[in-house]
Amino acid sequence: MNGDAGGTTRRRGRPPGTESGDTRDRILTTAREEFSERGYEKTSVRGIAKAAGVDPALVHHYFGTKEQVFEAAIEVAFAPALRAPDAIGDAPLDEVGERLTRFILGLWENPASRTPLLAIVRSAVNNETAATVFRRLIATQVLRRVAAQLHLPDAELRVELAAAQLVGCAMLRYVIKVEPLASADPEQIVARLAPVVQGHLTGP
Amino acid sequence: MNGDAGGTTRRRGRPPGTESGDTRDRILTTAREEFSERGYEKTSVRGIAKAAGVDPALVHHYFGTKEQVFEAAIEVAFAPALRAPDAIGDAPLDEVGERLTRFILGLWENPASRTPLLAIVRSAVNNETAATVFRRLIATQVLRRVAAQLHLPDAELRVELAAAQLVGCAMLRYVIKVEPLASADPEQIVARLAPVVQGHLTGP
Repeated sequence: MNGDAGGTTRRRGRPPGTESGDTRDRILTTAREEFSERGYEKTSVRGIAKAAGVDPALVHHYFGTKEQVFEAAIEVAFAPALRAPDAIGDAPLDEVGERLTRFILGLWENPASRTPLLAIVRSAVNNETAATVFRRLIATQVLRRVAAQLHLPDAELRVELAAAQLVGCAMLRYVIKVEPLASADPEQIVARLAPVVQGHLTGP
Repeated sequence: MNGDAGGTTRRRGRPPGTESGDTRDRILTTAREEFSERGYEKTSVRGIAKAAGVDPALVHHYFGTKEQVFEAAIEVAFAPALRAPDAIGDAPLDEVGERLTRFILGLWENPASRTPLLAIVRSAVNNETAATVFRRLIATQVLRRVAAQLHLPDAELRVELAAAQLVGCAMLRYVIKVEPLASADPEQIVARLAPVVQGHLTGP
């Protein structure tokens, strides 16, 4: 902390009371943009602070280490994906495959959710710390919650093999863009993948 | 070219006749190491030349552009994976799922082939040019050759959806390392994935 919390220097140090939420949000938005554009490795707390117009100490104050800023940032970027358990929450057990397939494919089809997902995947593939944060997030917030809804032995492995089918499809269709998969009709992909995802989740 | 091909300056310029194969190999090995360590974006023809102890013009002479050096380098690194079509070549049609699953999982289980595969995936995920080179390579040398062996309509899409299951499993098991998938017994994974891969390839 630089101690200049008097309110006259709005762009540095801790802002006065009621603005703290706004400042935290601004830092988080900026962090998300920085991580998306540069990836985990090239982004620094100093750079985020500079882009957000605050003191680096304030970033640490709200979020902690760079790893923790990243976790908060991808939690926002990843928010749509974190709703996957809700998307299948009320489905009959024999429909969860199609629900989950449509939900994940929908996230990737929509450029607004695809762009942050791509940024997260890029960071996680390139940096061990980013991979750890990503792993913790999908394990606790998606995989385990979906698994808990299945009430089956080895449910976590089942969910991960189902996720593997969907993640791999996203990689080949949206990242590597292999044809004919990249241009295939989404309904055709759902028709092919939903039974596989269902089989992983609830099959023998 | 610097024109100093007389043989006295062995570490620069085009080497004399019989050594050209060795030099080409040395450049290729160096290129593979540079791309593996730094990724596509941070690697330059100048850097490869320096590390191999040759003139940059010689790298261009043998391989062309940076994109073409990358293609030659990943073709070497990717060589084991390029044998996938042979691995299933003589299998009965109802066994290709298990053959392909065992073959791809085997590549990732072996650290010697996993390391270059990881480097390729990292470059392809992060750089559009690297993704294009990777896409061309797997499309022409793996997917289409496997598809040709199936003699089925929409064989290419089938092969890609099967590949998606295996690529996604590799991502979650070896790159992101989600548990329990990361520590699961390979035989358990084969038992779960082979029928799915078979279904994509030859199912209804």
